[in-house]
Amino acid sequence: MEVKPIGVIHSPFKRASGTPIQPSLAGGAQGRVEVFPEFEDGLKDLAGFERIWLLYWFDRASGAKLRVKPYMDDTKRGLFATRAPCRPNPIGLSCVKLLSVEGCELRVADVDMLDGTPLLDIKPYAPKFDHFEVVKFGWLEKAQQEGIADNRFYDEETGRTEK
Amino acid sequence: MEVKPIGVIHSPFKRASGTPIQPSLAGGAQGRVEVFPEFEDGLKDLAGFERIWLLYWFDRASGAKLRVKPYMDDTKRGLFATRAPCRPNPIGLSCVKLLSVEGCELRVADVDMLDGTPLLDIKPYAPKFDHFEVVKFGWLEKAQQEGIADNRFYDEETGRTEK
Repeated sequence: MEVKPIGVIHSPFKRASGTPIQPSLAGGAQGRVEVFPEFEDGLKDLAGFERIWLLYWFDRASGAKLRVKPYMDDTKRGLFATRAPCRPNPIGLSCVKLLSVEGCELRVADVDMLDGTPLLDIKPYAPKFDHFEVVKFGWLEKAQQEGIADNRFYDEETGRTEK
Repeated sequence: MEVKPIGVIHSPFKRASGTPIQPSLAGGAQGRVEVFPEFEDGLKDLAGFERIWLLYWFDRASGAKLRVKPYMDDTKRGLFATRAPCRPNPIGLSCVKLLSVEGCELRVADVDMLDGTPLLDIKPYAPKFDHFEVVKFGWLEKAQQEGIADNRFYDEETGRTEK
């Protein structure tokens, strides 16, 4: 099963350290999604949506870890109970604000990806599909509110996850 | 960029026709997620979450279409403004209810995947990350409410997307 980039995400963040850890904590940081021209036709009707899901490849994460100390916590957690980048299939998921669509280029806000991240898919965000009232959300119920990443998943020098 | 299954999703739905088109429209349909034993360690802490995201491979979709007539609509839309399965990277995204975690097996409700769908990733659903108030959600604002799939993306005989 092979995936291939359908575009590239451009953001102000060159290194993990200092990058917002989630769109909801990104304070409106703006970015640009460049969709490759062969997929432009699939962008029709997208401009009507206020928010969109971006699925992307954590290209600087190298190797999965099944227990991680996530951002916002000091305890090792099961990987699948976190949104950490070092996953067996390093696919990231972020719901960003769509500002405009012009040709193959999307202007977006609330970006939390590293600059140059390969884009895999775009899906519309619809409350009727994506909004669920939940009471329980595990360790995140008591998690700290800091929303800016440090170096825990990426080496400061190489910018990559240590193997 | 290669992805590999980390498990299999078991559901009551053998064919697209009759399958719910989204978890929110699945009426509680129950399923089972079998995670391969080598990933069991990553499931720690997951049981605290009421809902989880499943990322999976649309294994019966063969070939992308950039304009599709989505479920709930009669008009051709840009693929990326829909959740249709025939995507350049056929990755599905569903937020299911987590009923229990026992060893490598998750019991879930609100499933909308076909039986035997390869699992790629599990992420926790957290309101602080995943819930956004939106006013605009494009063509879906006026979409019909029927939530059960027909044959439009899959051939009734082969069970696969026609090329």
